[in-house]
Amino acid sequence: MSFLDQISSPTLLIDEKITRANIKRMADKAHSQGKKLVPHWKTAQSHEIGKWAEDYGITEVTASSIKLAEYLCGQGWKNIHIAFPFNIRETKRLDRLAEKQSLSVQIVNPITAKHLADNLTHEVGFFIEIDAGYGRTGVHVSDFGTIEEILRASKKSNHLKFKGFYLHPGHTYYTADKAGIYDQSKDALRMLKTKYQSEFPDLVTRIGDTPGCSVMEDFGDVDELGPGNFVFFDLMQAEMGSCRKEDISVCLAVPVVDINLQRKEILVHGGGVHLAKDVLVDEKGNKNFGEVVLLNEKGWEILKDRSYLKSISQEHGVIKASDSLLQSVKIGDLLGILPIHSCMTADCMGAYLSLDGKWIDHAEGCH
Amino acid sequence: MSFLDQISSPTLLIDEKITRANIKRMADKAHSQGKKLVPHWKTAQSHEIGKWAEDYGITEVTASSIKLAEYLCGQGWKNIHIAFPFNIRETKRLDRLAEKQSLSVQIVNPITAKHLADNLTHEVGFFIEIDAGYGRTGVHVSDFGTIEEILRASKKSNHLKFKGFYLHPGHTYYTADKAGIYDQSKDALRMLKTKYQSEFPDLVTRIGDTPGCSVMEDFGDVDELGPGNFVFFDLMQAEMGSCRKEDISVCLAVPVVDINLQRKEILVHGGGVHLAKDVLVDEKGNKNFGEVVLLNEKGWEILKDRSYLKSISQEHGVIKASDSLLQSVKIGDLLGILPIHSCMTADCMGAYLSLDGKWIDHAEGCH
Repeated sequence: MSFLDQISSPTLLIDEKITRANIKRMADKAHSQGKKLVPHWKTAQSHEIGKWAEDYGITEVTASSIKLAEYLCGQGWKNIHIAFPFNIRETKRLDRLAEKQSLSVQIVNPITAKHLADNLTHEVGFFIEIDAGYGRTGVHVSDFGTIEEILRASKKSNHLKFKGFYLHPGHTYYTADKAGIYDQSKDALRMLKTKYQSEFPDLVTRIGDTPGCSVMEDFGDVDELGPGNFVFFDLMQAEMGSCRKEDISVCLAVPVVDINLQRKEILVHGGGVHLAKDVLVDEKGNKNFGEVVLLNEKGWEILKDRSYLKSISQEHGVIKASDSLLQSVKIGDLLGILPIHSCMTADCMGAYLSLDGKWIDHAEGCH
Repeated sequence: MSFLDQISSPTLLIDEKITRANIKRMADKAHSQGKKLVPHWKTAQSHEIGKWAEDYGITEVTASSIKLAEYLCGQGWKNIHIAFPFNIRETKRLDRLAEKQSLSVQIVNPITAKHLADNLTHEVGFFIEIDAGYGRTGVHVSDFGTIEEILRASKKSNHLKFKGFYLHPGHTYYTADKAGIYDQSKDALRMLKTKYQSEFPDLVTRIGDTPGCSVMEDFGDVDELGPGNFVFFDLMQAEMGSCRKEDISVCLAVPVVDINLQRKEILVHGGGVHLAKDVLVDEKGNKNFGEVVLLNEKGWEILKDRSYLKSISQEHGVIKASDSLLQSVKIGDLLGILPIHSCMTADCMGAYLSLDGKWIDHAEGCH
């Protein structure tokens, strides 16, 4: 029996072989330069996929929320880093978790550092998040006043341990010049390391985003890499040149419920609650909510003639279909959809089906 | 203790009073014209909110998937209609559910009708979904050949019962001329009723979408109304004129994690995994992912000086803040965010907190 026979409703498929190859490629790149790879597990959110990652020397992961860190706890991770500016309303919850799991958090202001220093009763590490141009969050790279206020506040506690500087150059998503952004980011981290390492000889620097980590070859003297999406990749990453479409390792299986030959459209059960609503828009303004692949017993096949989701609503997906797809598809068939943003799709679906018909866990509602 | 003291992480709040007023207003409008209101429960997805609806004479609801119908089963609904072109891979599951719950489905092609007729062993009603101009799904209103093929196929089964015609004029979301669309839709349904009622004297017609049902006053000879979003409303509906902002009955409470006075931005824990990524874009291209309200012990207060989410990523939300908000807010505070698309936000969050601190159910992962 093929895994396809198990599927009656929208189901997120995972190709273990492609996933492992993605993890191995990034781990090899990091390790060959002596860097530690600490993948952001907001993408996979899975114990089982964590076990695959261990095979490539991954011993620590990053979570996007304390809920996800709780889910990942107890799986043998040497440390779980929560890469989100710490929310002081969750201090008690953090303290409880820190009793049984080595944790680190991210701090972007002295108020948070002081609050943690005053309230923690178990050891928690922290990174200072640095903004070197992205402009979403973090202490500005030249704002030494704030950095030192955070460090001073943390020193008042025996439980809050400074680990280093974290930089997420998310603006690599919006520009072709990833090398320029990386040069700037590496310079920023080098400057901070030089400035503070006499006082903190063990401090490390971490940089992390999939577009940058995928295309850059030389990470200079940055110590740790923290990308997340590369575990699955997706069409957004393929469009940016981070990967080939063949490297995308998850795909939403959707049942065909109607076919409109005149409009060359196929209606599937697969909408915003399954894929999320991330979208690629081409120069002409055409929207693409996911691209069709043909499912077979071994996984899926990328089509030469492109068919794609031109619109989605809560549950409906409307495929603009190529002539060859229209000729071959029947009501009741399954099609595959490569997602635009795999992290969001996995978060919507809450579980994966492997190509040998095994269910694979994904944290439920970890946000 | 206020409900606010219970909140440490992003939490979806529901104001029962506003929700009840929304349901009552629509029920009064329907019942005063002798129409049956069958709300689309893809928005609320809740047993508890279902009990509120019963107080206003609601006895049937609509589900968006068979999973949601399974969740809603056993709550005393006289009928649950699954308003999605039926997916024949789910026939067995439908048949099992039909053993214990009165159900109806939606059919848009003869292949599906034949499949159901051949395989059902318990009674299931069906509506033929009609497309009178929206162009997403449904049999074209003048395609009598297809309508009659569906009816012929269904007659071969004792279990498949024709109930009537269903029309979702979703293009009301994209035009100011909702009256024009409703005239066209009512004409289409009247024509079909006239044509088929001698053969099916009990057939009913149903129309349903929140923008139309909210602004239209006269539903003519349509028998049933099926809007969904009106239970909560949201900013998209407010912008279209379906409601006032004061009628929006759900709001995401988000913790403040950082404040950037220079950029006039507030960073909150609240992103795409909480709100979904629906967005309003103004004429200048500015994006709005949700609007800030002030939380207090009684609920929330709409601000005169507008502050809004200018960008979101998976977990982060960046608020473009008014001067008055910037002056009053502190790290560790909670702010409220009125959602752009409440159905998607509720689906992401999977539970509600009432203003008296009680958790209210929402179907988990019902897609």
